[in-house]
Amino acid sequence: MALVVQKFGGTSVGDIKRIENVAKKAIREYENGNRVIVVVSAMAGETNRLIKLAHEITDLPDEREMDVLISTGEQVTIALLSITLKKLGYKSKSYLGFQVPILTDSAFTKARILDVKADKILKDLEDGNIVVVAGFQGVDENGNVTTLGRGGSDTTAVAIAAALKADVCDIYTDVDGVYTTDPRIYSKARKLKKISYDEMLELASLGSKVLQIRSVELAKKYKVPVHVRTSFSDETGTIVCEEDKDMEKVVVSGISYNKDEARITLVNVPDKPGVAAKLFGEISNGNIVVDMIIQNSSKDGSTDLTFTVPRTDLKKALLLVNNVAKELGVEKVLHDENIAKVSIVGLGMRSHSGVAAKMFSVLGQAGINILMISTSEIKVSCAIDEKYTELAVRVLHDAFELDKESIKEE
Amino acid sequence: MALVVQKFGGTSVGDIKRIENVAKKAIREYENGNRVIVVVSAMAGETNRLIKLAHEITDLPDEREMDVLISTGEQVTIALLSITLKKLGYKSKSYLGFQVPILTDSAFTKARILDVKADKILKDLEDGNIVVVAGFQGVDENGNVTTLGRGGSDTTAVAIAAALKADVCDIYTDVDGVYTTDPRIYSKARKLKKISYDEMLELASLGSKVLQIRSVELAKKYKVPVHVRTSFSDETGTIVCEEDKDMEKVVVSGISYNKDEARITLVNVPDKPGVAAKLFGEISNGNIVVDMIIQNSSKDGSTDLTFTVPRTDLKKALLLVNNVAKELGVEKVLHDENIAKVSIVGLGMRSHSGVAAKMFSVLGQAGINILMISTSEIKVSCAIDEKYTELAVRVLHDAFELDKESIKEE
Repeated sequence: MALVVQKFGGTSVGDIKRIENVAKKAIREYENGNRVIVVVSAMAGETNRLIKLAHEITDLPDEREMDVLISTGEQVTIALLSITLKKLGYKSKSYLGFQVPILTDSAFTKARILDVKADKILKDLEDGNIVVVAGFQGVDENGNVTTLGRGGSDTTAVAIAAALKADVCDIYTDVDGVYTTDPRIYSKARKLKKISYDEMLELASLGSKVLQIRSVELAKKYKVPVHVRTSFSDETGTIVCEEDKDMEKVVVSGISYNKDEARITLVNVPDKPGVAAKLFGEISNGNIVVDMIIQNSSKDGSTDLTFTVPRTDLKKALLLVNNVAKELGVEKVLHDENIAKVSIVGLGMRSHSGVAAKMFSVLGQAGINILMISTSEIKVSCAIDEKYTELAVRVLHDAFELDKESIKEE
Repeated sequence: MALVVQKFGGTSVGDIKRIENVAKKAIREYENGNRVIVVVSAMAGETNRLIKLAHEITDLPDEREMDVLISTGEQVTIALLSITLKKLGYKSKSYLGFQVPILTDSAFTKARILDVKADKILKDLEDGNIVVVAGFQGVDENGNVTTLGRGGSDTTAVAIAAALKADVCDIYTDVDGVYTTDPRIYSKARKLKKISYDEMLELASLGSKVLQIRSVELAKKYKVPVHVRTSFSDETGTIVCEEDKDMEKVVVSGISYNKDEARITLVNVPDKPGVAAKLFGEISNGNIVVDMIIQNSSKDGSTDLTFTVPRTDLKKALLLVNNVAKELGVEKVLHDENIAKVSIVGLGMRSHSGVAAKMFSVLGQAGINILMISTSEIKVSCAIDEKYTELAVRVLHDAFELDKESIKEE
């Protein structure tokens, strides 16, 4: 008898008819002899409706009260799903965050889970219940309602699966799995049967459309196998799990891209200690996340410094940077919004040399100029002119033969 | 420094603009140097919207889950009100039933309050907060969400006022107080400045439009002064409080009527022990509440038995009664839907004789036949033909001079 956690997003519970479909998926697992916990999001549109109400009052609503407000969305769904399961003749009980309890810190609107007490749920499962848990919400040590941030229901599902040592955490969503790259960009993109937690984390731009990154981190920490699959059919999706030997043989598992960044360049920065600390300290104080950073080697006591920030933060970043630049005696500050980042990700890179070189060469042969490079253990990223994004993805996909399932030793 | 509990119903918090008005009423009390707790209902229409969603699934939704569902209505309101208070520059904190906690029994959808722990709220008041509490909801000893039944927010407000020994519980509603009779029936109806808990309870048909009966029982038990007033102006309403000497001088305080009952008569019931017990036992098992009961004195070993039931339960009652009647050898069963009950209520009746006689005489002079009579310590009720209801209210209102405020010794 396996223990299965199923998670359904807002679209999957968008109306009473869809909630009945969710109930039927849960019932099928139950009838297969498994113990079933269902984690659900708010009905599609509901969270936005509530946020809009608060914004009718003020642009900056109190965050504690926002969590009281928006957590009602999931509360409605769990009640409706449990009512449906009972109507269909099954025992069911719903759980709010405070009832489990799912203990979090007190960072309202973006709380982190500290602990999940599973005793009550376990007892209900033993009593034959299909247990329904509200995603996205928790409770802090003082009994305040908290929420986990957008997409937090994925994290709830994985945390529950970890606490109960579930055999699998099924994430039902509107895509049918994780692909070697975005199928809208390249029709040869192939659905992966399996991918490691680390690759999933590095494939952020592909993965974040599918799974909240925090839920992958949590799944990795507690070794919870996550099955990303579509709620519209019974098709198998992609298993996100610990790496195994087969995975390590694959040099490149996927190609991601990101068009949400902008580049800032400081020309002729005086090359003295503390300059970078000063600059990135100011940017960090402005709550702006810097991604790639490149500093050229020094010539004549000065250097060029280039980095990327989220495009939506560019204006704010330029204000901060221009202030610091004056102070530091920088010659000029340039910026470029038309860049994209293309990354190849794969566990096999750790033991295969020449992967980065192959990437640069493939891009070069396609006439694509590389603006910046950054690498991690299992990823190589290149910033390029935005207009070449699709081309870069396609030539790399072909070069690393991602359309083929066979395992290839380079 | 007084402690004031204010309660606002669904109409008063029906949209963001009205919620801001509620915030301003709370702020004014606060600025007057008082400590303020605001209890709110769900926004008008919200509870019905949620119930409708559940009824799309089934006519008989699980009651535990219904409470999870419909309690979200008040949750939304407290968040929006606290957000508004904070935007206006005041400290505020919202409380859900489980956060106070308001402990109830586990009778889902109609739970009764067992205890209110006030420590956390008291601390927040000391810290200068305007405290906002969700009406209608509580939590049972197992942490399940419960609700108190329609109008339950009144009861929440009074329970909080009792627990914190508040100086007054202001119930803001869409009428401006309690009247000597229904002003829609008689224009001479006069708003009462004060009324005792017992009179308020007996004036059910007037009072229940204004205050949930349970909240009056609770207010009486804990001697909480309740101020019924309109949320649309600053006018003083009616204080419901303990009786005082002035009240006792008033023979009749108000006249109520009820058109929701029907009469059933059993003709020639064998007059032997256990007959009434058998009959009313069956009716009670059918969950039907019997109001007036009259049994004539026995003639020739048989008697007539007449009683009233809610008109909506008449069909069901007749089914039960006809079965029992056959068993008991009753001659025939009659029924009449066109009756009304008119009642005069007043503390002074306890020490004044002749009040009932005067009522009968006034009705007789107006040509109104009395079908049934029942009396309590402070109430006399007559069942009459429904078509005479308005006439009866008016002639009684005149005869007992309810339009005049002066205290009159009979």
